[in-house]
Amino acid sequence: MAKTQKKHVYLFGDRKAEGNASMKSLLGGKGANLAEMNLIGVPVPPGFTITTEVCTLYYEKGREKVIGLIQPEVEKGVKSVEKIMGTRFGDPDNPCLLSVRSGARASMPGMMDTVLNLGLNDKVVKGLAKKTGNERFAWDSYRRFVQMFGDVVLGLKPQSKEDIDPFEEIIDHMKEEKGYKLDTELTTADLKELVKRFKKAVRERVGKEFPDDPWEQLWGSVMAVFGSWMNERAIVYRKLNGIPDDWGTAVNVQAMVFGNMGEDSGTGVAFTRDAATGEDVFNGEYLINAQGEDVVAGIRTPQQITLLGSHRWAALARVSEKERAAGYPSLEEVMPGIYKELNTIQQKLEDHYRDMQDLEFTIQNGKLWLLQTRNGKRTGAAMVKIAIDMLREKKIDKKTALMRVEPNKLDELLHPVFDTASLAGAKVVAKGLPASPGAATGQIVFHADEAEEWAAQGKKVILVRIETSPEDLKGMHVAEGILTARGGMTSHAAVVARGMGKCCVSGAGGIRIDYKKRTLTCDDVVFNEGDWISLNGSEGDVYQGKVATREPELSGDFGKLMKLADKVARLKVRTNADTPHDAQVAREFGAVGIGLCRTEHMFFGEGKIQAMREMILAKDEAGRRKALDKLLPIQRTDFEGIFEAMHDLPVTVRLLDPPLHEFVPHEEKEQNEMAKLMGIPLEEVQKKVAELHEFNPMLGHRGCRLGNTYPEISEMQTRAIIEAALNLKARGIRAVPEIMIPLTGTLEEMRLQEKIVRETAEKVFSERGNRIDYLVGTMIEVPRAALTADEIAESAEFFSFGTNDLTQMTFGYSRDDAGKFLPVYLRKGILKVDPFQVLDRDGVGKLVEMACKKGRKTRKNLKLGICGEHGGEPSSVEFCHLAGLHYVSCSPFRVPIAQLAAAQAVIREKEARKK
Amino acid sequence: MAKTQKKHVYLFGDRKAEGNASMKSLLGGKGANLAEMNLIGVPVPPGFTITTEVCTLYYEKGREKVIGLIQPEVEKGVKSVEKIMGTRFGDPDNPCLLSVRSGARASMPGMMDTVLNLGLNDKVVKGLAKKTGNERFAWDSYRRFVQMFGDVVLGLKPQSKEDIDPFEEIIDHMKEEKGYKLDTELTTADLKELVKRFKKAVRERVGKEFPDDPWEQLWGSVMAVFGSWMNERAIVYRKLNGIPDDWGTAVNVQAMVFGNMGEDSGTGVAFTRDAATGEDVFNGEYLINAQGEDVVAGIRTPQQITLLGSHRWAALARVSEKERAAGYPSLEEVMPGIYKELNTIQQKLEDHYRDMQDLEFTIQNGKLWLLQTRNGKRTGAAMVKIAIDMLREKKIDKKTALMRVEPNKLDELLHPVFDTASLAGAKVVAKGLPASPGAATGQIVFHADEAEEWAAQGKKVILVRIETSPEDLKGMHVAEGILTARGGMTSHAAVVARGMGKCCVSGAGGIRIDYKKRTLTCDDVVFNEGDWISLNGSEGDVYQGKVATREPELSGDFGKLMKLADKVARLKVRTNADTPHDAQVAREFGAVGIGLCRTEHMFFGEGKIQAMREMILAKDEAGRRKALDKLLPIQRTDFEGIFEAMHDLPVTVRLLDPPLHEFVPHEEKEQNEMAKLMGIPLEEVQKKVAELHEFNPMLGHRGCRLGNTYPEISEMQTRAIIEAALNLKARGIRAVPEIMIPLTGTLEEMRLQEKIVRETAEKVFSERGNRIDYLVGTMIEVPRAALTADEIAESAEFFSFGTNDLTQMTFGYSRDDAGKFLPVYLRKGILKVDPFQVLDRDGVGKLVEMACKKGRKTRKNLKLGICGEHGGEPSSVEFCHLAGLHYVSCSPFRVPIAQLAAAQAVIREKEARKK
Repeated sequence: MAKTQKKHVYLFGDRKAEGNASMKSLLGGKGANLAEMNLIGVPVPPGFTITTEVCTLYYEKGREKVIGLIQPEVEKGVKSVEKIMGTRFGDPDNPCLLSVRSGARASMPGMMDTVLNLGLNDKVVKGLAKKTGNERFAWDSYRRFVQMFGDVVLGLKPQSKEDIDPFEEIIDHMKEEKGYKLDTELTTADLKELVKRFKKAVRERVGKEFPDDPWEQLWGSVMAVFGSWMNERAIVYRKLNGIPDDWGTAVNVQAMVFGNMGEDSGTGVAFTRDAATGEDVFNGEYLINAQGEDVVAGIRTPQQITLLGSHRWAALARVSEKERAAGYPSLEEVMPGIYKELNTIQQKLEDHYRDMQDLEFTIQNGKLWLLQTRNGKRTGAAMVKIAIDMLREKKIDKKTALMRVEPNKLDELLHPVFDTASLAGAKVVAKGLPASPGAATGQIVFHADEAEEWAAQGKKVILVRIETSPEDLKGMHVAEGILTARGGMTSHAAVVARGMGKCCVSGAGGIRIDYKKRTLTCDDVVFNEGDWISLNGSEGDVYQGKVATREPELSGDFGKLMKLADKVARLKVRTNADTPHDAQVAREFGAVGIGLCRTEHMFFGEGKIQAMREMILAKDEAGRRKALDKLLPIQRTDFEGIFEAMHDLPVTVRLLDPPLHEFVPHEEKEQNEMAKLMGIPLEEVQKKVAELHEFNPMLGHRGCRLGNTYPEISEMQTRAIIEAALNLKARGIRAVPEIMIPLTGTLEEMRLQEKIVRETAEKVFSERGNRIDYLVGTMIEVPRAALTADEIAESAEFFSFGTNDLTQMTFGYSRDDAGKFLPVYLRKGILKVDPFQVLDRDGVGKLVEMACKKGRKTRKNLKLGICGEHGGEPSSVEFCHLAGLHYVSCSPFRVPIAQLAAAQAVIREKEARKK
Repeated sequence: MAKTQKKHVYLFGDRKAEGNASMKSLLGGKGANLAEMNLIGVPVPPGFTITTEVCTLYYEKGREKVIGLIQPEVEKGVKSVEKIMGTRFGDPDNPCLLSVRSGARASMPGMMDTVLNLGLNDKVVKGLAKKTGNERFAWDSYRRFVQMFGDVVLGLKPQSKEDIDPFEEIIDHMKEEKGYKLDTELTTADLKELVKRFKKAVRERVGKEFPDDPWEQLWGSVMAVFGSWMNERAIVYRKLNGIPDDWGTAVNVQAMVFGNMGEDSGTGVAFTRDAATGEDVFNGEYLINAQGEDVVAGIRTPQQITLLGSHRWAALARVSEKERAAGYPSLEEVMPGIYKELNTIQQKLEDHYRDMQDLEFTIQNGKLWLLQTRNGKRTGAAMVKIAIDMLREKKIDKKTALMRVEPNKLDELLHPVFDTASLAGAKVVAKGLPASPGAATGQIVFHADEAEEWAAQGKKVILVRIETSPEDLKGMHVAEGILTARGGMTSHAAVVARGMGKCCVSGAGGIRIDYKKRTLTCDDVVFNEGDWISLNGSEGDVYQGKVATREPELSGDFGKLMKLADKVARLKVRTNADTPHDAQVAREFGAVGIGLCRTEHMFFGEGKIQAMREMILAKDEAGRRKALDKLLPIQRTDFEGIFEAMHDLPVTVRLLDPPLHEFVPHEEKEQNEMAKLMGIPLEEVQKKVAELHEFNPMLGHRGCRLGNTYPEISEMQTRAIIEAALNLKARGIRAVPEIMIPLTGTLEEMRLQEKIVRETAEKVFSERGNRIDYLVGTMIEVPRAALTADEIAESAEFFSFGTNDLTQMTFGYSRDDAGKFLPVYLRKGILKVDPFQVLDRDGVGKLVEMACKKGRKTRKNLKLGICGEHGGEPSSVEFCHLAGLHYVSCSPFRVPIAQLAAAQAVIREKEARKK
């Protein structure tokens, strides 16, 4: 028998709390921080947190059992709130109103449901009016509550994207009746009538009365929040952000405080540093006489908290100082006392959490309440800057600085910016807020699902919306950039775009969007769906047409971070590069070698493809050798270029891999040209093309199967590599070739190829009277190679895991065809992630680990690397570190990402060991 | 320092021997038996054996080092022979002649080289003539030696199949000059002239003198035998018979004895039992005044050893008793004393070796010499009969009886025989010897390589040759049957065909074959290449045209063997069957269930395919469900039939597996028909067909990926299975369905399918108010499934290894495309065997073992089976036994093979444990 009942509800308020910041798993991020804020003396509306465990129970045992279980604790919680606020829940004379909010372990902004102003009914609303002396406020709160509760708890919401919100429809209807343009024109009487009509709509459409009992309202809301954990947009968000479904959300119930109680009230969102640039300036937005949702929804353009911010905003928005001071003054100017308190609190919070904070606050009749603090989302650039700044400020140590940057976010820093020259002639047609930095160019689409369709066709799209909502998430994900007509820097579009590292211009007030006609109008210019525009998310500019982009320049902080990473990481980072240019770029990013140089790319292009085709068409070895003789000098020259760019660093050259049919034309017109060039009949070309056809080319005559059936190909390629290296040696440049045999599945395959390579190399050495060092190894990309790695290591001096193909064969998924079921699999949760993006540790990873272990058993100093696309994906890089690989190899632009991920892997491993 | 020098040469002779029968690895089968025969008192020409280790050294160190190493021992060996025979090597007055023969661990008849009559030169031949008083014999021996040595050691042989043998050319030339028809017309003078011309040919074509020095002859011959281990036909034979290349051959050097020393000499081959039927009768063939090669080569029609055999032969050959007694008398009649001695020896040898023996003997001037004894090759039927007979005779125990039968040989017993009705009207156009039993029908081809080509095109061919040689091996392998004009029951064609279990009629003297015109003439009927003939290998009849075949009837011995196997085997044998008929056949062969019932085969055929296509063309789930409703009763009926045939035994039903494009027509004509039938435009059909196209269908949208994207398909199939089982239950018949999910790669895939199956089953149970027991399990055919088998076993109640696909994915070989490189890989020895035929233990097998281990860890009573084609291949069956599977499943006709292989696996495992 358990002596202590399990605790499900944690109270906080009045600078006391049962929880603290370390209890995020149990209380969610928000709940833990509300507790912590109380503990460090920040004014927070009192309340209580229902734990994430209760959410799990909700899905296991159902609503009724959960209510039964937590009822006593929740009642105790409400009593505690009543006591601190001096009000009573459901008491018309002195009402206590509550908010009910979700709060998961990881932030999922806007993904789950919230109910505010809870506790109101026809009686209580009168008491609230009386108590606050503001009847309109009371009825407006009541109207909002009925609307929100109707939407969230009772499910009265638009059923499709064409559908209008049923409550908004009623409001619009009334405004039409009354001839109003703005919501603010609604009188108290109108609001009363609205509440009536709302409740009628509920009765008619939901089939039951709107609940008057505050407790029924509370339970309905709490359970609705638990239920919203599994709504579609939350599931999508978790999938995109790698948050497990079984974490669950906590529910935070708090006393309501009102930012819409008049001109001495307000609400806002603030960041302790700049979330876009990382600059160490307090900043944020607020609205007077408004509730929090008004700021986030982006319906009114919010004002800046600091004077500095306000000036900066005015400059960007091209608003005169006069207009600014009159129409958009800062909080610092309007409520200097509150501002001072807020500024002190923000510093306290950042110092306490040692990270940039994202705060929500409300001012109720001149009193400041902090509603929430959490680590602020930020751009990649801001991540780097804040991490390095805080390291400099000695707020954090080196390890923490490294862990503060999400490797994938570095991608943003490496994104192209507009080409200055191209920009010169470009016409700015609109101006908005610089919501998320970067440059983007694409074709206009107006709906998220169309963005997806177009992107799937390979088009670059800019998603243009009046404002965005979580329903637009997928569309935003595939778009190059996002442009919205409404919303500030903390609007949905802005926050999400920054999270995605996607360029975004928000709140471009001067534009008009017509979803029906599918037009975007910027002053006199009308754009149709499909027209090209360009966005500068760092400046907020919208350009007509395409604007060329160029590579970004990297900040000094970036360099410092990379240096830190390099010191910590054990894994080396190489690059996949087939040209001297790519090799050079990667080297500048810090790559210490080429892990994959695909030789087949060299066979395409003028003059080369013809010789290749001659080889394929040759009837016998002699014919093939003749054609290969033509390819030899071409390959040698290519290798010289790459070896030179990578001088002194290893270059892994993979011998010919793809099936030969990839080199022959499949259209009759081209076949005709080929026939003419070769001086043979068309039929012969067509016969050969037909002969080369394969049912499953992925599993066909390719890789070392080519080199083993046509050894003269491997011979020519080896000769080209060795001759190139010797040519460079003669010029005093050191080439370090590593010759890689593709698609090995048996030791014998490898042995035969190794023999050809070694014999050819020795031949060249003796011809030239000179030698170089080189290695011979193999890709491990066929499951059998991993399973028999102990044997293969007898011949191979290095393994490089080709996890693209290894994933294809281990899963039995053709990457070219998986589009038919992979999206369904991801949607249904059969797969948590796309295994072509994130290395599958349980399956493919097992083979990699096995191969490493077996390979090393045979050859202690076996060199191990990975050259699949996973080599640039952070979680896969971590796996490679844990598996004991020596290096990862990835595309040049992902080198820094891999480098940082490699450093983080070391830190995480050490931390895990401590536990 | 080693005190004892390693021994390379083992002497034998005069009832003494340094080796014995247990030393086969070292001395080869022949060498070990020559030693053993001496030890048990059988008269054997004295000699010595050079060990197989020396062969390995020959390939490692080369000829010269090996000679240096073994020279003293060989010289000692020759001295010992000289002493026993009372002759001297190279002494013209009293010459000792030697034979040099190969002798590997496993018998490889005719694959390697032999040199006879060694030690002759221009001087010694005269001594031999003088000593034997037979100048013609001496010069004929010399002629034969020069010819053989020239061919084998000096390499003077035909270079292509069109080429004539250079020595035969010289003989033909001389016969033409002299106007002779037969070789026997050659006079002593002619033979002297032939030797001269032979040596001249050697001088001209090889560029050196024919060696006169007997020692030079000896070393040349010994090394040539070592060299012949790696000739192409030997390599091919080893590949076909699974003999490792690194075993090497021993070389046996023996005193020559001559069967061609006159009418009191002779030579023969004998079997202690009938190699074709297994009957316990001594039998064999001999020739008076001939050397051994004359019998084997099939140039003269040999006579029978026993009188019984002679009478039987006469009846078959339609030779009158008078003609027989005069022209073809038995040894029993001609040399009753020798016969008696031989008969005693054969019994002694069979009793000693406890197995049917294949003997070679020579009679030299009235003295019997045994040249060789070995376990005789035999047909499948003979294997079974001899094993069961010897068990009955208590010569061997049950285990030995089981081990005596090669499982694959059972196939022969199960081969079709001619349909009696069809046979009635068939015309016998020729008659030959019943060289290898069975019936065959096919198109005539005259060359082995053409047989291969035609067979590759899917044609059935009968290889028709004057006589066969090892060069014809591959062609014989692919032919349905073999017909030769020359050669007896022990001719190359006969021995090899029996070994292959292939129907063969040999020595059909009445036929004429013209290779140039490509005709076969039987009396007045002329057949051209491509014409159909039929062979009865059990009777020796050749029929004009096609003759229908029917299933064989099995002997009681077969039943006894199977019962023995069943008692010993731990593995159960199921069958792969999709129809009630196949299920019935397999059940009669002893199958204890269906391991794989492929449901997709049920979708083809009248009425079914249309509903299937409707489903594929349906635009949404509702449309699919409508079409599936039509398929449901069809599937249910099919399942009822199969469940009834397999009542009380488990039936594993695999849900839909192949990609949908396999069900739609790809030719426009058929697409048009489909469009008309469906009442939709052609374009729509074509659009769908195009949509369904996949780059790598093997890795595409198939297996449970279909069931998980279109759950309604799994639902319909489950309903059909469960309803069928319940319908049978209502009729008092017990169905035991095991529902199998194909192509599972992740636990989640399996879970989703299991959920559909269980929910559907429960629904049907409640509809019917009745239940049945069933299992839900999965194929393990994707590498990832094996790697994560512990997870998958959480949902799967059984695993069935689909080793066809598992082999494809583990090797990365598309079975449809591997034809481009697999033959090269086998030829080059990169692969020892085709992994689609013999399960690859090192790679695929590792995955199977891993999956068994992991699966059982999660679910102790997990049922494990295999349903790939490997399930009927003996070595793969052994692997399955060792891996601890519960059953194998194979095609109905391979059920007995699997059963026997399963029993042998148990015996071999126990024996291995003893060691």
